[in-house]
Amino acid sequence: MRAKKPLPKRAAANFIRQAQRLTTAASDSRWLDAAARLASRARPESYPNPGVGCILVKDAAVVGRGWTAPGGRPHAEAAALQQAGEQAFGATAYVTLEPCAHRSRRGPACSDLLIEAGVSRVVAGVEDPDPRTAGDGLARLRQAGITADLLLSTTAETSLAGYLARARHQRPHVTMKLAISLDGCIAMANGESQWMTGPVARAHVHSRRALADAILVGGGTWRADKPKLDVRLPGLEGRDPQRVVLTRGVAPDGVKVINSPDQICQLDALYLYVEAGANIAASFLEADLVDRLELYRAPIVIGGGRSAVGDLGLESLAEAHGHWTLAERRQLGSDSFEAYSRLRQK
Amino acid sequence: MRAKKPLPKRAAANFIRQAQRLTTAASDSRWLDAAARLASRARPESYPNPGVGCILVKDAAVVGRGWTAPGGRPHAEAAALQQAGEQAFGATAYVTLEPCAHRSRRGPACSDLLIEAGVSRVVAGVEDPDPRTAGDGLARLRQAGITADLLLSTTAETSLAGYLARARHQRPHVTMKLAISLDGCIAMANGESQWMTGPVARAHVHSRRALADAILVGGGTWRADKPKLDVRLPGLEGRDPQRVVLTRGVAPDGVKVINSPDQICQLDALYLYVEAGANIAASFLEADLVDRLELYRAPIVIGGGRSAVGDLGLESLAEAHGHWTLAERRQLGSDSFEAYSRLRQK
Repeated sequence: MRAKKPLPKRAAANFIRQAQRLTTAASDSRWLDAAARLASRARPESYPNPGVGCILVKDAAVVGRGWTAPGGRPHAEAAALQQAGEQAFGATAYVTLEPCAHRSRRGPACSDLLIEAGVSRVVAGVEDPDPRTAGDGLARLRQAGITADLLLSTTAETSLAGYLARARHQRPHVTMKLAISLDGCIAMANGESQWMTGPVARAHVHSRRALADAILVGGGTWRADKPKLDVRLPGLEGRDPQRVVLTRGVAPDGVKVINSPDQICQLDALYLYVEAGANIAASFLEADLVDRLELYRAPIVIGGGRSAVGDLGLESLAEAHGHWTLAERRQLGSDSFEAYSRLRQK
Repeated sequence: MRAKKPLPKRAAANFIRQAQRLTTAASDSRWLDAAARLASRARPESYPNPGVGCILVKDAAVVGRGWTAPGGRPHAEAAALQQAGEQAFGATAYVTLEPCAHRSRRGPACSDLLIEAGVSRVVAGVEDPDPRTAGDGLARLRQAGITADLLLSTTAETSLAGYLARARHQRPHVTMKLAISLDGCIAMANGESQWMTGPVARAHVHSRRALADAILVGGGTWRADKPKLDVRLPGLEGRDPQRVVLTRGVAPDGVKVINSPDQICQLDALYLYVEAGANIAASFLEADLVDRLELYRAPIVIGGGRSAVGDLGLESLAEAHGHWTLAERRQLGSDSFEAYSRLRQK
């Protein structure tokens, strides 16, 4: 083999610069992923604030980590800066949401805190739709001589789903759960539905409840099953979400009542978990109010049972396509769990 | 650290012998798995004979491989011995099914062939239920001084599913396919069902057809869709299975008609592939004639469509449990494929 001729000097320099840019972008995106994982620790207790994650990195080492505290304060940036102390000086801050620009009674603006701490660069995954910030957070950082980049991140966006649903659609993010047989039944023809799935799947449902601010069932389920809708998992006691019943009837004690799916905008919630029967499923799907569909599938065939989803008024198969994409799949004992996320708004 | 005392001589010898036995058993089982994979090449063309696989191993190296030829002869052992030639002497023969003991017009008994070739050991995965062999194959080998072991193998058994279903239940092995939406519909309420799944899933269906001796649809599907039920895959032309329609009506040209599921025992087939609508699905499931359930699931929700499976007459959820276990799962484009195998005979 012949030895290769060395690259001309300028080409070599360009090549190296390009490689560095690509490497930096890839590593920025990975740090934002890590910040999004931290953010998940804040859900749902950060309510009414979004659950944000922040990582401070200096010389390729983490010097501070933070996520939004229960109740919403301190913010993630404040927590991470607190942990880093003087090491924050010259560090890069990775934060899932644009640092806030507004001072409030409850604390200073995070963009000011980052300036004071002397960070050299800020990378945010999502621009804050809050009109009090909306780009002003990054602008203020830049005015102070700090490099401030918006690097659009799907994981950051996903971790802020509830906050973004409220900002963009004035309603909570909606996860709808269905427990079904292989042939798509939620119950026997006689109504028997306990139990379709096994104990592992049922515990998983409780872990999903613990991520919600509010949990909704239909009036029929409420009257028939008197469900507790609480979180029965060790260490997660007290994580019971607000209970909501969709009914035209009267409100039971301690339960909020709404009369139609579009009234979910009135709920004090970023994340709503819907435990659906066929009618509730159909009414939420028809109103296009489902962001994530979670299926628990038992390895059983019922045959002629009650269908999982009532009439949606579709006129052709083409209308049914293109709405959902598989986001997660796992085995829970002998049951399968699948989550589908929305592909497009109707 | 102190040096350990050496084991007493007899204990050491026992330990070594036990380790060797375990190692040998594990490696025997792996060679049978490999023979079962070879056997799959014979399906379904070996009909009317079972598709058998055989591997000859000498000094840890493969010296011969064979599988049942189209039409059933030569047998797998004959093919493997032919390939090994003189190297078969002293080798171990791994064969998915007990070597046959009966001479026929079409060829000599495989147990005789193995004796003549001078193999030193035979390991079979399943005892041949054919009354002309039924243990006599292994017995004849032992009489000739050859070590002959029956090492029960699930993979060998699975690869012989059609042959064993015929021997044990006097009917072909039945795979039932359903193409459904996430909510378990096989069609819109108006009957529209083309297409539920995408091109990758449909090509997969053709590859499954190519593994069947016969393919069955209901009279309704036959009249409504006029399905070709052929194999449209490059290289697999001419693999079209016998077409069977379950109907009370008259037989179309080139199509076999049966009137009820239990008449599948009359079919000249080891493997039957049922492309089911709701009624066919229910009648085969109710008759407990489904060994493998293959689901193609499109990521769509139909709502109020036609259910995949008609009434099975179950009276409680408990009756539905314990029949199926997940055997295979894969993603086919945006569709999911799942195969469930039968857990128990009713």
